Amino acid sequence: MPNTRPNPLLSDRDIAFHLFEELDAESLTRLPAFSAHSREGFELFLDSCRRFAREQLFPLYRPMDAEPPVLRDGRVRVHPRMGDLWRGMTELGLINAMRPEAVGGQGLPVTVFTLATAYLMAGNLSAYGYVGLTAGAAHLIETFGDAALKDALMRPMYEGRWTGTMALTEPQAGSSLADVRTTATPAADGTYRIRGSKIFISGGDQDFAENTVHLTLARIDGAPAGTKGISLFAVPARRLGPDGQLVPNDVHVAGVIHKIGWRGLPSLALNYGEEGDCHGWLVGAAGRGLPQMFQMMNEARLMVGMNACASASAAYHEALAYAQERTQGRPLTSRDPSSAPVPLVAHADVRRMLLRQKAIVEGSLSLLGYTALQGDLSHHADSEDARARASLLLDLLTPVAKTFPSEKGFEANALSVQVHGGYGYTSEYMPEAWLRDQKLNTIHEGTSGIQSLDLLGRKAVAGGGEALRLYGEEVARTVERARAAGVEGALCDALAAATDGLLSLTMEVAGRGLAGDVDGMLRHSSHYLDLFSTHAIAWRWLEQAAVAEEALRRGAGATDAAFYEGKRRAAAYWLRTELPRCAPLAQLIRSNEDSYAAMPVEAF
Amino acid sequence: MPNTRPNPLLSDRDIAFHLFEELDAESLTRLPAFSAHSREGFELFLDSCRRFAREQLFPLYRPMDAEPPVLRDGRVRVHPRMGDLWRGMTELGLINAMRPEAVGGQGLPVTVFTLATAYLMAGNLSAYGYVGLTAGAAHLIETFGDAALKDALMRPMYEGRWTGTMALTEPQAGSSLADVRTTATPAADGTYRIRGSKIFISGGDQDFAENTVHLTLARIDGAPAGTKGISLFAVPARRLGPDGQLVPNDVHVAGVIHKIGWRGLPSLALNYGEEGDCHGWLVGAAGRGLPQMFQMMNEARLMVGMNACASASAAYHEALAYAQERTQGRPLTSRDPSSAPVPLVAHADVRRMLLRQKAIVEGSLSLLGYTALQGDLSHHADSEDARARASLLLDLLTPVAKTFPSEKGFEANALSVQVHGGYGYTSEYMPEAWLRDQKLNTIHEGTSGIQSLDLLGRKAVAGGGEALRLYGEEVARTVERARAAGVEGALCDALAAATDGLLSLTMEVAGRGLAGDVDGMLRHSSHYLDLFSTHAIAWRWLEQAAVAEEALRRGAGATDAAFYEGKRRAAAYWLRTELPRCAPLAQLIRSNEDSYAAMPVEAF
Repeated sequence: MPNTRPNPLLSDRDIAFHLFEELDAESLTRLPAFSAHSREGFELFLDSCRRFAREQLFPLYRPMDAEPPVLRDGRVRVHPRMGDLWRGMTELGLINAMRPEAVGGQGLPVTVFTLATAYLMAGNLSAYGYVGLTAGAAHLIETFGDAALKDALMRPMYEGRWTGTMALTEPQAGSSLADVRTTATPAADGTYRIRGSKIFISGGDQDFAENTVHLTLARIDGAPAGTKGISLFAVPARRLGPDGQLVPNDVHVAGVIHKIGWRGLPSLALNYGEEGDCHGWLVGAAGRGLPQMFQMMNEARLMVGMNACASASAAYHEALAYAQERTQGRPLTSRDPSSAPVPLVAHADVRRMLLRQKAIVEGSLSLLGYTALQGDLSHHADSEDARARASLLLDLLTPVAKTFPSEKGFEANALSVQVHGGYGYTSEYMPEAWLRDQKLNTIHEGTSGIQSLDLLGRKAVAGGGEALRLYGEEVARTVERARAAGVEGALCDALAAATDGLLSLTMEVAGRGLAGDVDGMLRHSSHYLDLFSTHAIAWRWLEQAAVAEEALRRGAGATDAAFYEGKRRAAAYWLRTELPRCAPLAQLIRSNEDSYAAMPVEAF
Repeated sequence: MPNTRPNPLLSDRDIAFHLFEELDAESLTRLPAFSAHSREGFELFLDSCRRFAREQLFPLYRPMDAEPPVLRDGRVRVHPRMGDLWRGMTELGLINAMRPEAVGGQGLPVTVFTLATAYLMAGNLSAYGYVGLTAGAAHLIETFGDAALKDALMRPMYEGRWTGTMALTEPQAGSSLADVRTTATPAADGTYRIRGSKIFISGGDQDFAENTVHLTLARIDGAPAGTKGISLFAVPARRLGPDGQLVPNDVHVAGVIHKIGWRGLPSLALNYGEEGDCHGWLVGAAGRGLPQMFQMMNEARLMVGMNACASASAAYHEALAYAQERTQGRPLTSRDPSSAPVPLVAHADVRRMLLRQKAIVEGSLSLLGYTALQGDLSHHADSEDARARASLLLDLLTPVAKTFPSEKGFEANALSVQVHGGYGYTSEYMPEAWLRDQKLNTIHEGTSGIQSLDLLGRKAVAGGGEALRLYGEEVARTVERARAAGVEGALCDALAAATDGLLSLTMEVAGRGLAGDVDGMLRHSSHYLDLFSTHAIAWRWLEQAAVAEEALRRGAGATDAAFYEGKRRAAAYWLRTELPRCAPLAQLIRSNEDSYAAMPVEAF
């Protein structure tokens, strides 16, 4: 049977570092929106999340992986203990923790929420998935719905009585939302009759809460083709009947998809309106479905980034513990076979694998935390200018913060398997499960390829390159801080040079688009995202190194000194091992090498 | 239920290219050892392998993955159809196809066998695994056993009546064979009594053949500690009893390990001698167990390389077919939503993923084919000098040919999932299964980390760098051939420069070892293997480009012209996208950056 042993999931010391030393979340309490909060309050929330993750969510991770939801009599039956987890998470106030008191929330900063919920994700991605989806769905109605809709559909979700989903993808269209075919026919009562099929609907049904609201993209009869004809509808699985009871709303589970990971969260095919009686409520303006849905999609993209980071973190801590307790072999310079074997962690190459995992995990945490902070500032900073600036940075970094943890987290999780050797390849140990989970993160909420088009085609060139200019300023600020703190000059110089390279490359590539060569501009978008991510993580590591250096100069006890030394070394690792990849990548993109772009299909 | 559709597994045109155009396998028939063979004979063998793979092995791949072997009443029960596959493969003469007629074989060149059996592996890794292991075990007895042992134990394996395994790993020792504890006590009858436990024994039991011979590492009582005290024993699961019947030999299946891939081939924990009556036969000389076993390990390492390459090939062909039939989205420059969607393969980034898979698969095939050719020449070339030269190259390239396809094959298989989008993540489609299979290949028969120590610590510096010098000569020959054929000069220059860089780096790093700093020499062994592999694959791609260019100059029909164009483009892709990674990697290794090597455990 699966061997689940205690796992910290994330390092508490590290989360405190990101939140209070690197990002200074306490300073948010000086903004009016967060003036009711305090560092102590943030720490209480953190503590309740981490305890719930370790004591409740993680022990049920393996059982939920082993017994995925099944379809019986048209309804999905989830793991019998999932209901307890749901109630526990709603009691923590997670669904509307970031929303204002007016809708029952706690008004927590995104920054704090993001780093706190990382524990929940690391403990049990699937179980937390219901919360994340429900929060996003309710938030859409909060933002775009009218008062009646909020009362009828948002409130039960925020109260944890109902769950929510996002229903975008259709079987024939996949990622191409312009091809959504689900229809919405106006009815006399002011609602719409929905007809169509959706697929890959995560959490699309469950049996622990009384209803599920599907935030659904559909076309009102007569709407134009393409994305401009798409509207957003709230479509509950059960609607309020004439007698005030919930009655079926003609939404049917057509099938459960057999996923290789995230197995506790069902992914469903749904049919709407088989009986012509599926009622949908328009959310916001007709034809504005896609831009509105992007509120949820952007939230979901950052959530996927943290899902990936959290999974990589749990796998890293598992490998770190295993490498210290499992003895095997001897140092290269001491081959005396009668000497005692050493722990795995004594071998340089095992330490390399562990440091790489650490660099990916904590680099991702830093980037995700920073991006979340821009989310808070974009709404609540004390000047219009500061809000606009944060908003641009948030948009720019969203595809990076989604994709880097997903792509490199998969590599990190594979390294966790590798550290476990043959055991890592068996379901008697944990790493293989996290590896399976991780692969989904490069696909859902926009594949890595789509994120790369978003980054290079939209975000990096937004406002004539204004977002990228701001990014350059932020990086320059970090370089100056690092120099002042006494971080090794060569590392500071390397990041500064790479930043110049990134900015000039972007201008050159954007110039192709301006000259009308859109294909040429976007041909190497994946390589551009790789370059940008590598740079962004180097930036976050230099920032972390600067913070660590400052702390060491102020003086630190032995435990803290070791922690900061780890930050220094992981920063050096990333800047010396990964940052040098940027120059050849830039050269490749600049060359516009066309081996694949112009490859005839018959030549494959 | 799993959807298995026809899949070519490998491209027949491509296999013919490697075998007859790139490696000129026909010229082997001019050597005395292969004089009875002809190109037509090779093609017949190829054809029977590919037909068996497509018609018999592949259709049973999913069923065997879905119903892995179980332990019942102390015996392993494999998939009920596995026996048919075993008989089919023995009828093809696979177990001793490369062995001489004297032991019932066909005396086929390793080169031909390697590329032909790639189909079998691509069709069903697990089913072929029994053949590969049995062949390796029988070959050990053929090489090191006496006449009686050959008659008693080798012959039934070569005849396909029994199977064989390699039994090295023990639970407490893992990769550290110096710590093997299994004991062998001399008995009055000249055999030994074996006692101990082994783990991860692939194919360690089955119910389709009448016996299994475990080639087992153990220590004779009183033997010295470490590897020098290890001897090799043949330990059958059942031995010949006094009445000429097979009787149990006190080898017990202690457990079946639950693997995430290769699920058709059981991986077992075995206990020897629980009743004090496990008979083992010494193979070869006492104390020579490890060097002798290396014959089988080296064969197995190349087999794992081809396992990985074959799995990546099947996944690549699946993605290529899917990308042509699945329509989604529109070209970047034609966003008219009323236009028809285009096939996935029309998107540049999908073509990037496919070309990367092709470059990994066909680059690996080329390297594995070349390495196999050195295997043939090391035994059968017509001069002592040529044999010695081939032997050095074979040794040098074995860790590379094992590790590159395993590490990059995993990435390629992940790309196959990615091309399939959300569907790729489900067990309704094939790619996830190949992804699971692939992860084992970086672990078994020596992890990637161990291969990197073997490459840098032994092979690259063997004979004072003689093997590496020969490698440099071979690469230089390719560069000259490519220049003469008219391959773009920049590509030739790039490989030549990278070769100089590799050779000078190796000398510098080896110098550290000579100066007594073994840790410093081997600190970046994984990066060195990465660099070496990237270079070796660039070399094989330039060779392929040269062959393609020559063929195009001679004139080719439309189908062949497209095929050669694919070779050109894949070569350009690898040399322009991957080869530039070598310079920063060399700089990193040269710098001897010590972030992880000197990382204190408490700083993680």
